[in-house]
Amino acid sequence: MRLEGMVANIFSGFAPDMAEEIFETLAESDSVRIERIVSSGQATADGSWYDQEHDEWVLLLAGSAGLQFEGEDEPRVLAEGDYLLIPARCRHRVAWTDQQRQTIWLAVHFRGAGVP
Amino acid sequence: MRLEGMVANIFSGFAPDMAEEIFETLAESDSVRIERIVSSGQATADGSWYDQEHDEWVLLLAGSAGLQFEGEDEPRVLAEGDYLLIPARCRHRVAWTDQQRQTIWLAVHFRGAGVP
Repeated sequence: MRLEGMVANIFSGFAPDMAEEIFETLAESDSVRIERIVSSGQATADGSWYDQEHDEWVLLLAGSAGLQFEGEDEPRVLAEGDYLLIPARCRHRVAWTDQQRQTIWLAVHFRGAGVP
Repeated sequence: MRLEGMVANIFSGFAPDMAEEIFETLAESDSVRIERIVSSGQATADGSWYDQEHDEWVLLLAGSAGLQFEGEDEPRVLAEGDYLLIPARCRHRVAWTDQQRQTIWLAVHFRGAGVP
């Protein structure tokens, strides 16, 4: 039995009153990285876009956020439990995150996604 | 903009009163598969073990479950938000899932995991 079997909780392990945004890798391999992001009202800087070489699957676990895709008029509003695939090279930015409570994201970064 | 950017919700899209266990692939590539599992009281058959060639990262999103590892006396009790890495070849079984409500799992199957 290796220690990798240890149980942790996605909703704990960070300060409830912190001001900064935190990024934590929970597991990874050559081809995938599973990350928790905790936002406290942060947004991507005005005029900046994420333009990634890999696919990213995102699940919003708590809070709320607006995810803007280039070429779309309005951000998509994400609530608890919402998920989507952000294909490689699909330019996007976080327009806003919840100002009232922390927003917890699960992000799975990987290569060569497809949707069944 | 491709349709992969469509938003869905992890807590919807299945019947609340169903009796069977459902497995649904949400996204996949050559090296990773992201799966939702909805259990309604199911368990792995007595004496049966999962013995996988790949690593599996599991997050319990709703309900509760007991996850038994071979060689351990008792199942690990998983509550909402609990996650763990099940390394390849680590024999395990689901001892029980919640009898009162549906248990929703997110499973990320991938090769060559490591823990940071």
